[in-house]
Amino acid sequence: MSLVNVGTVAFDAIETPFGKTDKIIGGACTYISLAASYFTKQAKIVSVVGEDFPQETLDMFKAKDIITEGLQVKQGEKTFFWSGKYHNDMNSRDTIDTQLNVLENFDPVIPDSYQDCEYLMLGNLTPSLQLKVIESMEVRPKLIVLDTMNFWMEIAMPDLKKVIKEIGVLTINDEEARLLSGEYSLRKAARKILEMGPTTLIIKKGEHGALLFGGDKVFYAPALPLEEVFDPTGAGDTFPGGFIGHLASTGDLSWENMKNAIIMGSAMASFTVEKFGIERLRDLSMEEIADRINEFAELTNFSLEFPSKVK
Amino acid sequence: MSLVNVGTVAFDAIETPFGKTDKIIGGACTYISLAASYFTKQAKIVSVVGEDFPQETLDMFKAKDIITEGLQVKQGEKTFFWSGKYHNDMNSRDTIDTQLNVLENFDPVIPDSYQDCEYLMLGNLTPSLQLKVIESMEVRPKLIVLDTMNFWMEIAMPDLKKVIKEIGVLTINDEEARLLSGEYSLRKAARKILEMGPTTLIIKKGEHGALLFGGDKVFYAPALPLEEVFDPTGAGDTFPGGFIGHLASTGDLSWENMKNAIIMGSAMASFTVEKFGIERLRDLSMEEIADRINEFAELTNFSLEFPSKVK
Repeated sequence: MSLVNVGTVAFDAIETPFGKTDKIIGGACTYISLAASYFTKQAKIVSVVGEDFPQETLDMFKAKDIITEGLQVKQGEKTFFWSGKYHNDMNSRDTIDTQLNVLENFDPVIPDSYQDCEYLMLGNLTPSLQLKVIESMEVRPKLIVLDTMNFWMEIAMPDLKKVIKEIGVLTINDEEARLLSGEYSLRKAARKILEMGPTTLIIKKGEHGALLFGGDKVFYAPALPLEEVFDPTGAGDTFPGGFIGHLASTGDLSWENMKNAIIMGSAMASFTVEKFGIERLRDLSMEEIADRINEFAELTNFSLEFPSKVK
Repeated sequence: MSLVNVGTVAFDAIETPFGKTDKIIGGACTYISLAASYFTKQAKIVSVVGEDFPQETLDMFKAKDIITEGLQVKQGEKTFFWSGKYHNDMNSRDTIDTQLNVLENFDPVIPDSYQDCEYLMLGNLTPSLQLKVIESMEVRPKLIVLDTMNFWMEIAMPDLKKVIKEIGVLTINDEEARLLSGEYSLRKAARKILEMGPTTLIIKKGEHGALLFGGDKVFYAPALPLEEVFDPTGAGDTFPGGFIGHLASTGDLSWENMKNAIIMGSAMASFTVEKFGIERLRDLSMEEIADRINEFAELTNFSLEFPSKVK
């Protein structure tokens, strides 16, 4: 079923304790679309790049059956650029440089061919633009998933709250859930956030996994303990990409399938961190994905029956 | 099957963002023994207290079918006392006061009636004392579980490594696993630590759950997201208590049952943090424990089959 992904397509330059890259392909919408492409046909991009963006990457999107009609290419302008350096613990990073470039005046336009979209993924972006996209859809999608970050909570909270009202699933990290709700307990934070509009909340906890909240239910998807986290960039975008990709491919929005979708998101994100940028995510086989899903099942499934043999 | 628990029985004074206690009952061996008492008959304590220790608590142990023959009561001396204050995030704390008292010259003696012990739980204590206990056992127990902390890694690493060689299961937190192994990746840390002696390693991650490592296998027990973590004191001791209590009651040391045991440990620890000290852990019903185990199953079990309906 038709999926539209909105967000940045960008250049990143990344430094981790394991090495350093020159300008490589990044951006939330890139990770989201690649992750979703393993599950859904013709995932559609809405984004903007400059004339410096490589044709090779546009060709790669095409090869992945990703539709780029909504990807504006601005002649005479440059692609959004972000550069960052991770600390030794890989859980925090410093931004070295941000060059907005084409993003400064980005006006997301939804092509007519995208209008039948049933699933809409709004990657991290200015909340007013995310709202504009929702308002541009002639028919309200069956599911809207929105990712955002603390930055917008600090400078554009009213706009953010406006767009959150309109969505089905919100994905943020634990720090952001606390900031948005004013509650330290994630369970209390979730209850407050679910009152703001979304029916489902996902709290991403990086190497500690992710929590799924809906009504009074909660589910915990672990992160796979990896030999090496090589580069965390994009994991937080790959995750919702795998999540909505699975939902769009199955068309099932039940609680049980939301649980499956969050496992799928975690599995896809666990690939992204294994290499720089999109290097690992770009060329996965279905067998690799199936193996990883099995690893997650082994990681968490147990069969304790209690009382089994008490005293 | 017979279980012996060695560690501190103490007084604590605790301050959290939710309130403050006077001297209340604490100590690793207290939490371990109470947690285990729900699963195993006649859990046996080896510890020491002063003459100021309340008879009421000794009676409570008796009522719980906990054997205190190995709990030395030193006349004219005072019980070990610890006082601490938790930070607002409840993940870190400052020690306000430590009065070793009877612990200063503690010489753990294993009563003859304890010698048939098949399961030995060594709570956090000076590594040389932990080793002495192992050497005091006429027959090597079927399973030895050892808990320790960063403090001993800093001041008594050679002794700690000596005792770790002799045990089956080591329980430490993530920071301690990194300190002990010199590896940041927990997967690499686990491999190095398993080469030091134990066949199984448990890495406790507090509100983020716990990891179980054995051979090349790994299992992730989540922590239950709670409305309120009222007082984390003793959770890290309750956890191995529930773990070894389940193993001792089932007598099954397979990987599958280790998984069940770590879930049991997590479930028991989730009670401890709900109130100050042992207040919640002391009076649980079997129904409450069974309900909590079910919550853990709902929290983590999923049934994703892949490829389910790819493209």
